[in-house]
Amino acid sequence: MDVSPLTLNRLSIYLRCLRRLRGEGVCQVSSQQFADRFRLSAAQIRKDLATFGEFGIRGVGYEVEPLLRRITELLGLDQRHALAVVGMGSLGSAFARHIGETRGPFVVAAGFDNDPDKVGRTVGGVLVEPVSAIASTVPERDVRIGIVAVPAAAAQEICDQLVAAGIRSVLNFAPVRLATSEGVRTRNVDLRIYLEELVYYLVSPSRSWASEEA
Amino acid sequence: MDVSPLTLNRLSIYLRCLRRLRGEGVCQVSSQQFADRFRLSAAQIRKDLATFGEFGIRGVGYEVEPLLRRITELLGLDQRHALAVVGMGSLGSAFARHIGETRGPFVVAAGFDNDPDKVGRTVGGVLVEPVSAIASTVPERDVRIGIVAVPAAAAQEICDQLVAAGIRSVLNFAPVRLATSEGVRTRNVDLRIYLEELVYYLVSPSRSWASEEA
Repeated sequence: MDVSPLTLNRLSIYLRCLRRLRGEGVCQVSSQQFADRFRLSAAQIRKDLATFGEFGIRGVGYEVEPLLRRITELLGLDQRHALAVVGMGSLGSAFARHIGETRGPFVVAAGFDNDPDKVGRTVGGVLVEPVSAIASTVPERDVRIGIVAVPAAAAQEICDQLVAAGIRSVLNFAPVRLATSEGVRTRNVDLRIYLEELVYYLVSPSRSWASEEA
Repeated sequence: MDVSPLTLNRLSIYLRCLRRLRGEGVCQVSSQQFADRFRLSAAQIRKDLATFGEFGIRGVGYEVEPLLRRITELLGLDQRHALAVVGMGSLGSAFARHIGETRGPFVVAAGFDNDPDKVGRTVGGVLVEPVSAIASTVPERDVRIGIVAVPAAAAQEICDQLVAAGIRSVLNFAPVRLATSEGVRTRNVDLRIYLEELVYYLVSPSRSWASEEA
């Protein structure tokens, strides 16, 4: 099945909502109830979930538990995923702690930094190793997802080292586009870009208030 | 001018690239050179920058410094913007430190938390105040942008308090959609959703590798 990143992001949101409904003992929900409850679009829900038709009962809605299980499987969240964080500064450390604190399929399996003061310390439950250990530690612990939280100038080199060690997905906090080989996927998270987007609408309140796209 | 969030995000990226070019002493750049250098799309650049036509010289390209200044003004980044961070846990603290460490128009002017152990401490250069101080501190320091970094269950209440105190833009790290009144803009940053997106393509390498949309 071919799914765009924006659709995937919406499926992730549906998953969170379905978990809350399950926690409240709800077994069935209509797209309209679902939309009203979580401030989503009923038409969009119906479109996104059309491929999961077997869980939709005409005139009644969706069965919560089977739909939840199906989306979890589709997204690959029924498996454990090991992450490696490179750059244990404020953002990298916070990310490791954040993932460590929350339940879910993600485990921070390794952390790397070039600062000798950070190497050997434990952050968010993970021992910080020198960057030179990427080549051995990443394949050893079967890590496939890398988090790049180093300064912009170092990001490409770190990304190359991660990919050489077997990483296939990169979440990039550095404010730079990374070049990767085919089969490697990157996702940029640039917090300043989000702030700049907010500021644009702030400085010109008369500008469009089109709802967020992601 | 009516600009979509995705276009704004691209303008932010162009701005970073233009700053690098200026730092290297480049005065003029063609859309093709610009695209090649920073791994962007030349056609997209031309389309996005068409409204800044006065800085494009046919057959030559764009004048770096005037274009940079114009985009900076358009995005409102020639002004100082005060932020308030609510929730000084790992993510909120990292965000405050991250903004404090980097130059730019953003200043963390206030930090709030309900944990008595955190109140009174200084994080990223800002004194942590109790959440009850939002109503007085936010207008006092002319803060217009709020960062919500509290657990999902508390996010809506905090958002309501921020908006009541005068906040008009909310960057939300909590994994929940916020309801806001008209004229208030929210941007969700859910790190787990980005991880979930990466995992989808990881577990099914045969799936589409369409490039990232944002």
